Amino acid sequence: MSSGSAHGRHVVVRTIERAPGADIAGLGDAGTATVHEAIGRRGYLGPELRPIQQGVKVAGSAVTVRSHPGDNIMIHAAVEVCQPGDLLVVTNTAPSTHGMFGDLLASSLMSRGVVGLVMDAGVRDTMDLRAMGFWVWTRHVSCEGTVKASPGSVNVPISINGVIIEPGDVICADDDGVVAVPRDEANWALERSNARLETEAETRARLQAGELGLDMYGLRQKLVELGVEWIE
Amino acid sequence: MSSGSAHGRHVVVRTIERAPGADIAGLGDAGTATVHEAIGRRGYLGPELRPIQQGVKVAGSAVTVRSHPGDNIMIHAAVEVCQPGDLLVVTNTAPSTHGMFGDLLASSLMSRGVVGLVMDAGVRDTMDLRAMGFWVWTRHVSCEGTVKASPGSVNVPISINGVIIEPGDVICADDDGVVAVPRDEANWALERSNARLETEAETRARLQAGELGLDMYGLRQKLVELGVEWIE
Amino acid sequence: MSSGSAHGRHVVVRTIERAPGADIAGLGDAGTATVHEAIGRRGYLGPELRPIQQGVKVAGSAVTVRSHPGDNIMIHAAVEVCQPGDLLVVTNTAPSTHGMFGDLLASSLMSRGVVGLVMDAGVRDTMDLRAMGFWVWTRHVSCEGTVKASPGSVNVPISINGVIIEPGDVICADDDGVVAVPRDEANWALERSNARLETEAETRARLQAGELGLDMYGLRQKLVELGVEWIE
Amino acid sequence: MSSGSAHGRHVVVRTIERAPGADIAGLGDAGTATVHEAIGRRGYLGPELRPIQQGVKVAGSAVTVRSHPGDNIMIHAAVEVCQPGDLLVVTNTAPSTHGMFGDLLASSLMSRGVVGLVMDAGVRDTMDLRAMGFWVWTRHVSCEGTVKASPGSVNVPISINGVIIEPGDVICADDDGVVAVPRDEANWALERSNARLETEAETRARLQAGELGLDMYGLRQKLVELGVEWIE
Amino acid sequence: MSSGSAHGRHVVVRTIERAPGADIAGLGDAGTATVHEAIGRRGYLGPELRPIQQGVKVAGSAVTVRSHPGDNIMIHAAVEVCQPGDLLVVTNTAPSTHGMFGDLLASSLMSRGVVGLVMDAGVRDTMDLRAMGFWVWTRHVSCEGTVKASPGSVNVPISINGVIIEPGDVICADDDGVVAVPRDEANWALERSNARLETEAETRARLQAGELGLDMYGLRQKLVELGVEWIE
Amino acid sequence: MSSGSAHGRHVVVRTIERAPGADIAGLGDAGTATVHEAIGRRGYLGPELRPIQQGVKVAGSAVTVRSHPGDNIMIHAAVEVCQPGDLLVVTNTAPSTHGMFGDLLASSLMSRGVVGLVMDAGVRDTMDLRAMGFWVWTRHVSCEGTVKASPGSVNVPISINGVIIEPGDVICADDDGVVAVPRDEANWALERSNARLETEAETRARLQAGELGLDMYGLRQKLVELGVEWIE
Repeated sequence: MSSGSAHGRHVVVRTIERAPGADIAGLGDAGTATVHEAIGRRGYLGPELRPIQQGVKVAGSAVTVRSHPGDNIMIHAAVEVCQPGDLLVVTNTAPSTHGMFGDLLASSLMSRGVVGLVMDAGVRDTMDLRAMGFWVWTRHVSCEGTVKASPGSVNVPISINGVIIEPGDVICADDDGVVAVPRDEANWALERSNARLETEAETRARLQAGELGLDMYGLRQKLVELGVEWIE
Repeated sequence: MSSGSAHGRHVVVRTIERAPGADIAGLGDAGTATVHEAIGRRGYLGPELRPIQQGVKVAGSAVTVRSHPGDNIMIHAAVEVCQPGDLLVVTNTAPSTHGMFGDLLASSLMSRGVVGLVMDAGVRDTMDLRAMGFWVWTRHVSCEGTVKASPGSVNVPISINGVIIEPGDVICADDDGVVAVPRDEANWALERSNARLETEAETRARLQAGELGLDMYGLRQKLVELGVEWIE
Repeated sequence: MSSGSAHGRHVVVRTIERAPGADIAGLGDAGTATVHEAIGRRGYLGPELRPIQQGVKVAGSAVTVRSHPGDNIMIHAAVEVCQPGDLLVVTNTAPSTHGMFGDLLASSLMSRGVVGLVMDAGVRDTMDLRAMGFWVWTRHVSCEGTVKASPGSVNVPISINGVIIEPGDVICADDDGVVAVPRDEANWALERSNARLETEAETRARLQAGELGLDMYGLRQKLVELGVEWIE
Repeated sequence: MSSGSAHGRHVVVRTIERAPGADIAGLGDAGTATVHEAIGRRGYLGPELRPIQQGVKVAGSAVTVRSHPGDNIMIHAAVEVCQPGDLLVVTNTAPSTHGMFGDLLASSLMSRGVVGLVMDAGVRDTMDLRAMGFWVWTRHVSCEGTVKASPGSVNVPISINGVIIEPGDVICADDDGVVAVPRDEANWALERSNARLETEAETRARLQAGELGLDMYGLRQKLVELGVEWIE
Repeated sequence: MSSGSAHGRHVVVRTIERAPGADIAGLGDAGTATVHEAIGRRGYLGPELRPIQQGVKVAGSAVTVRSHPGDNIMIHAAVEVCQPGDLLVVTNTAPSTHGMFGDLLASSLMSRGVVGLVMDAGVRDTMDLRAMGFWVWTRHVSCEGTVKASPGSVNVPISINGVIIEPGDVICADDDGVVAVPRDEANWALERSNARLETEAETRARLQAGELGLDMYGLRQKLVELGVEWIE
Repeated sequence: MSSGSAHGRHVVVRTIERAPGADIAGLGDAGTATVHEAIGRRGYLGPELRPIQQGVKVAGSAVTVRSHPGDNIMIHAAVEVCQPGDLLVVTNTAPSTHGMFGDLLASSLMSRGVVGLVMDAGVRDTMDLRAMGFWVWTRHVSCEGTVKASPGSVNVPISINGVIIEPGDVICADDDGVVAVPRDEANWALERSNARLETEAETRARLQAGELGLDMYGLRQKLVELGVEWIE
């Protein structure tokens, strides 16, 4: 673990590095499926994190929160260190279904230009959040509230679904879920994503015209080698 | 357990007390997150009960059903004792994914002024239910039907997710889930909910103006006492 | 198991029989709840298979795929044997959350007139799939991609949720889930579905007029026999 | 809810009524499957509550605890009101996997003659608990500890898996799980359980001798009426 | 589906073919991991089916039951068609946690020489079943009982976890779970299993002597080709 | 992420630092519940990781593996870099139930002095593993085998259940689960664990003598402050 959490200390790290805004914007446009492939099938936060809205694609810089379950005091601590273009990523020291986040915290974050939230627990006020245009990916929706009583950390490395997220990593999110890109790979990831999008546009046109993936990708011979037989 | 179910008897209780309509309406408007907080973080039926529609907030008086899994005969028995403004709450003696409820039962309940359904199993005909404006919160959506073969009870105490629901309790439901308020606490709950809504309106304005929750709630000192350190 | 998969062979069966188009269309219109009841409460693929769109009712002929988890090479192999009106049904030899299917494969299938997909794993590009009007029922949504490395079979018997699906069976799908009808029962299933729809129309009218299911179905006497007591 | 928890009050109820010791002992000997059947297939706390030991059958009087998740202060409050022969039953206001109970609390309870624990969350020190002979049924095993910070109640009605448990109800537990018997039904439940055990002894002897349940229970004719056909 | 279940008929098929006893015994000795590999990584019924005992390896001929959830009438119907060496395999038309099977049915089956049970729902009386030496693999343990009210079928094709099981298929079960081998592949499966066991014995000796799998299987070069780098 | 996995490279890190053997041994003796508390309630890998044996307490140095699901080639690569006293910790890039590890790999690891395995997927040959005395904590038991086809990494940071594990961290495991202690905190963790064990010994003696935790920990006053009321 980073020095920030060594020996169980609880810290709020005020200053983090972020990727260039253009890279972040480009990754958001590319979408999670493309970015995930482009960086070597890494960084996916799992199918349990679902959007509460539909049709939104965004990317932002991760401000990370490690919280006690059922307690949102550290989210309040995180607001102060957020900047425009950030995306809050919250996890807990144990599984929780509590609605740790609602429209009041969203108002606070929107006033600072934060673009959204990835919550590894629950959110509430979802009707309001959708109306406000504050974008959320969450494990649970729950009206069950929280206390403000236990310490945690802000901007330390966290992990969700086996993916380690460092503060300042680029978080891409859309209807297919959430992908984290290491900050120092953002430009490399964007280049590879764009290259992939170009290739896919061409592939799509050929497939729409009726060409088969079997032929285009040379899979027929491979299937034969794998022992697959065609029969009537 | 209530005398109604003592020694394993199956009963349909015809007459129940209900909270005043104005209190019910007010609690519906307040929404589940507010009401749940107002009554001391109680009464939430859990994140597994999800609405089949979006953007609906309602409240009604609980008519309760305890059913055999995969059997909807007791829902038919419940229709007769429903009144306008009621909200049917159905649970089973064992977990079930069956679609125990569909558009025919909804037609029957709508003709009696029932406002919706909380189903601790499955529903079907969801496309029709949305079109009819019959509001539903359910654990599962499933086209799998049921028989009409096993006895159960109507208007006895039931429980979902550890919350005990008495007939006539006020059921509040919206996009964040379902909350049960004990009938004799309805007016108290409404007063506290309204007080909370007033406070939140003021808080929201201050947060939108950029004030921090850390300052507004006096959390900085608390975090220091909890051992949280701010570092660069 | 069919000869196609005996002794662990991997095969692509090119030619399958399909039910008459009129029967398929009629079953699609009838909807899953009706069809499931009509054929004796069979064929439901379970509440975990959810649509990624809302308000769509379809039916098609099953082209079946048995795939290695996290590998979509056999879906490419399946495209070639699809015909207009088919509906692809994909399962895996072990549980998987991978997004095995996206907009490129959908483009390919749409160019052949395939109406949709039932995926017993995950899909991605859901925003695009909705925009394209390619209908999908799936266990997971996940941007996590796959390889093209392991053999499997196309058009062999598969099973999902305990239901055995033969190639050419009729797959009905709507907001309530997915139901499989054996191919040689399609016409019988349609007749019974239509008979059921007629009865239900009459029943619905009577229920809307306030008549009780208790009386209409003769359930009062049955409840008494089951030991249910009415009390005040 | 009972007056004890009305309007969100937190209470410790010092004095509860208990069933006669002979009835409790008899129900423990009868075992959960028999008792559950005897009282009309009620009272089962669900397959998720598993024993941490094997081969133990007990019964005791329920001392109930409703706790905040991840907090065991109310278990300490409960110890004081326990008596010999009691069995602690703990639930939470939200799902939790925390190990809320370990060998220290077990030492404390054993010194008061408590026979075991039913925990609707997690326990730890399971190696020690088995060695001590303190019997536990639990949803989770987890070494994750708790705080002592949030209020709750002792000896109020709680519910697990839809079963309402009143303080003083008889809790039966063995390798098949946990069953709650309403206190005032204990003697009736024992009589019916014993009658059932006698019948079963005779049935068992006949089945062991090769007689068929089909014949013994008269099921052949029933199967024919249900439309089942015997074929070769 | 087989003619036996066409158009929704419920049947008990009296006579099934079975694999030779020597093949069955050999497959039981080989164990599930070996057999599953030997037949091409097929036939595994999934990690949810767990033994209630430890250290038992068996195989038997499948007598299949398709039952209504929470109803065990068809298990009684199955007893009559069982023979020595059979192993009962029970599934349901919808998921169920009910304890559908206990010591009485086990007594009946043992009197006919049945070796065990695979239950895709729940069992009870587990303490007695272990004492009797009746071997069980099950999804749930639950004391919750069942009715005898709904029709089903015996000795029709069923499926569990995507594996289609025909009556008379060989069921292998041990501490690692359950594997189904198609009846007509039993001898082929045994030969391949035995070949595999021989190879493994040699491999085991070399690994115990310190040789590396990397070298023995030639994986070093493969890893290099896959792009894996060794660094300090 | 560490440089080892930057930009999606797959690496095997040959050399890692380990904590002193005496510290590791001491932490193993202390047990997971004590260690987890001692380091500030951190490091618990979650209740899903269960032992396949009972009554074993160990600790070792983490050799980490990040694998493709259903593929065990990287476990073979890890064997070579293991030393006596190590404990293998395996995770996957997506959830998997495959039995990725069996008695052959255990033989190989035992020949190198490895003490056990933590598997965030499945294992098989559990009967043999118990007999060999190779200790395992795993998410699943499954006879389903794997391929050797996809690259991954050895001795890079991984995470399980939100806990980041660096190669060389101390892994403590017993019947209550698994806890990871950062390598450079091992000595500090041991001192705090031992201090805690001393205190607990004294506390245990007082509780066994009948003293109440309420009094010993001064909780009575706290409960009053929290609003808890004692009633009859």
